[in-house]
Amino acid sequence: MAENGMERKPWRFDFNPKLRDASSRNIRSTVDLLLSNIDRSDARPVIPLGHGDPSSFPSFRTTAVAEAAVVSAVRSGEYNCYGGSRNLVPSRRLSLPLPGSPLSANSDDVFLTMGCLHAIETVISVLARPGANILLPRPCYPFYEVRAQFSGIEVRYFDLLPDRGWEIDLDAVETLADDRTAAMVIINPGNPTGSVLSYGHLEKVAETARKLGIMIIADEVYGHLVFGNNPFVPMGVFGSVVPVLTIGSISKRWAVPGWRLGWIAACDPNGILKDAQIVKYTNEYLSITSEPVTFIQGAIPEIIKNTTQDFFDKMISLLRQTGSMCYDRVLEMGCFHCRHKAEGSMFMLVRPDPEPLFLKGSSSEMLHITDDVDFCCKLAKEESLIILPGSTVGLPNWLRITFAVEPSSLEDGLLRLKAFCGRHAKGGK
Amino acid sequence: MAENGMERKPWRFDFNPKLRDASSRNIRSTVDLLLSNIDRSDARPVIPLGHGDPSSFPSFRTTAVAEAAVVSAVRSGEYNCYGGSRNLVPSRRLSLPLPGSPLSANSDDVFLTMGCLHAIETVISVLARPGANILLPRPCYPFYEVRAQFSGIEVRYFDLLPDRGWEIDLDAVETLADDRTAAMVIINPGNPTGSVLSYGHLEKVAETARKLGIMIIADEVYGHLVFGNNPFVPMGVFGSVVPVLTIGSISKRWAVPGWRLGWIAACDPNGILKDAQIVKYTNEYLSITSEPVTFIQGAIPEIIKNTTQDFFDKMISLLRQTGSMCYDRVLEMGCFHCRHKAEGSMFMLVRPDPEPLFLKGSSSEMLHITDDVDFCCKLAKEESLIILPGSTVGLPNWLRITFAVEPSSLEDGLLRLKAFCGRHAKGGK
Repeated sequence: MAENGMERKPWRFDFNPKLRDASSRNIRSTVDLLLSNIDRSDARPVIPLGHGDPSSFPSFRTTAVAEAAVVSAVRSGEYNCYGGSRNLVPSRRLSLPLPGSPLSANSDDVFLTMGCLHAIETVISVLARPGANILLPRPCYPFYEVRAQFSGIEVRYFDLLPDRGWEIDLDAVETLADDRTAAMVIINPGNPTGSVLSYGHLEKVAETARKLGIMIIADEVYGHLVFGNNPFVPMGVFGSVVPVLTIGSISKRWAVPGWRLGWIAACDPNGILKDAQIVKYTNEYLSITSEPVTFIQGAIPEIIKNTTQDFFDKMISLLRQTGSMCYDRVLEMGCFHCRHKAEGSMFMLVRPDPEPLFLKGSSSEMLHITDDVDFCCKLAKEESLIILPGSTVGLPNWLRITFAVEPSSLEDGLLRLKAFCGRHAKGGK
Repeated sequence: MAENGMERKPWRFDFNPKLRDASSRNIRSTVDLLLSNIDRSDARPVIPLGHGDPSSFPSFRTTAVAEAAVVSAVRSGEYNCYGGSRNLVPSRRLSLPLPGSPLSANSDDVFLTMGCLHAIETVISVLARPGANILLPRPCYPFYEVRAQFSGIEVRYFDLLPDRGWEIDLDAVETLADDRTAAMVIINPGNPTGSVLSYGHLEKVAETARKLGIMIIADEVYGHLVFGNNPFVPMGVFGSVVPVLTIGSISKRWAVPGWRLGWIAACDPNGILKDAQIVKYTNEYLSITSEPVTFIQGAIPEIIKNTTQDFFDKMISLLRQTGSMCYDRVLEMGCFHCRHKAEGSMFMLVRPDPEPLFLKGSSSEMLHITDDVDFCCKLAKEESLIILPGSTVGLPNWLRITFAVEPSSLEDGLLRLKAFCGRHAKGGK
């Protein structure tokens, strides 16, 4: 007990057990695991097809207009203060019509957040009353489950159906919901599915949620990034059928995820969320967390006003091109099923096929591939190529490929994938 | 049950009751309340002596060096990505020696956060295992209690002693601590006290915490902003006596609270926090929240390297000048006790004296002042002057005055306070 001449008791502190394994199902930690497998003696650059952030590639550089708006806000010196103290008026709320939000200009139920993660954290925290549960899609962006677990709200999964363009299994939703179900989450355009849900399907989703008495959390972080047959339909257009909390951000459409600017929009013309005090408690939660950087809040009106259609068109055209290239080349390899060509977001889900891919070489321990994580670790090691194992997004033995990278890098990456499969797969060409 | 032709159940969702009244004890909501009392027909500008954010005043404008570093990071286009994906290497940790942190350059136990609020949120969340308690000073920056309440960790208060320069009542600390006590919080330089604790007192604090087996959370957000007799002593210098988590940010020293860049530094040469997995779970918590804006992370090395001593000296000199002006003028009014001239941070605590201040005019309902909140509301209404009621920081019937404003505004504000007191106080001159 005596150290340095002073008596002390044993240390009393310990960590919060709710945080146990919190990071382990994050995309970030999976990517870190894959990176730790990279062979440092491989002189080739690492090709990152593992996560949805193309902002470092020249073709995906954000518009000069957005950078100029931020630079101008910094240089003005007017936005060094807390956002809440700017002109001594709280500025959490934005009265602008936001891109990806169906709100009219006079709506004030838009709350700025530090990117989409903070928006998800907020809606989950607000809804996590004791005993409540929330319905999540499978596959899903994993941050929803991570935050639900931390907040103590129970998670129940409904399937997305690969043979129906990743539409929602609405029968499953009806079976799962009970009197403690607060909300269902939809991610459209889909992450990780790359799907874009039709107006007709979204209408059915709204009617189902209404029947069950649950709200919809509409994750539209990839809103407007569509390049197939279905147009992007914001869930908020069904706000009069069922109350919708829409989550959005400038991260993907402007390719600036590092700027940490997102929002929550209450699409609720009947005032149901207001009556249930969900809007009030969203404000309460935001009052006890940090807020977006003030000069980025200050730059937002200029960014929205000055960005030209050209910039958006070029981004869509690029995603259409890389998405098609990715689909065609992967199919040509002859060892993957891909049920659905991506029509939106930045992702494509594929399933190794023939299944014996994972068994080939079982006589040699070096070549034996046991599952999707093992596949991706070996791929990282042998080809310096990062692809996300499906188990990270709730679909074991699938793979999520990001095609939002520089076209030349994508081409290189797909050649490496082909070489890898040629060595490992029975049916590889 | 039938609306719009569709059957629906009653809505199932409800808010998380842990958020009830979460915002009500925030400084922001108190300031909002005071602002709602401003007489809009008063043509004079509102003078904000209520909160610690002088960044909008010309004399407190941050250094051009810091703005240039941010502009350069934005213009480079290299920091639009997630911080974690920059060069595909996680970048939550910073290997630079941080200002206000006693760490050597090779320490990697520094975690960047979205300002100090996020740092507080993180340490409280990590320590909030079921049944734990935490010791907070009274008076205190109120965000600690708000987050503790949300996280379910019990709060116990020890007093700061106004007659001893706001030193900590260490006997009270010993009485309050038990086997479930995780940590004690110290804020030095003091908010709201304006005190700067001596080396000798901090050493006693460290020894007391060690004897009790609790860690110290050292809030040094106002670190280096000292202008009295005591130099600033970072608590981390006692890290070999007791493990210390130091909280810091660039918000105050650089006058850029809107940039949202802070840190948590584990000052723990004996590895006690590492062994207890506090460092690991700090990482886990940060993995499930948003992170600082990437280009600000990218600008930090330049900001630290290029800021000249001149800038810091000018800031200190200005605070010494405004702090002295505030102290002298308030004492001259003859109706306030001020036990301790501010020696650090941006605040001074005063107590109306003679006490009958709050009773004068009781015959007239208009003039009757019932308590500190009422005092500040009437002051806002009559003089367009904002001062923070002490009850917001745990000291009812005291007032917290910020002197970090443009000197001409401070002068004007103190004249208005004098006029107000002259009308209301028995002993007013």
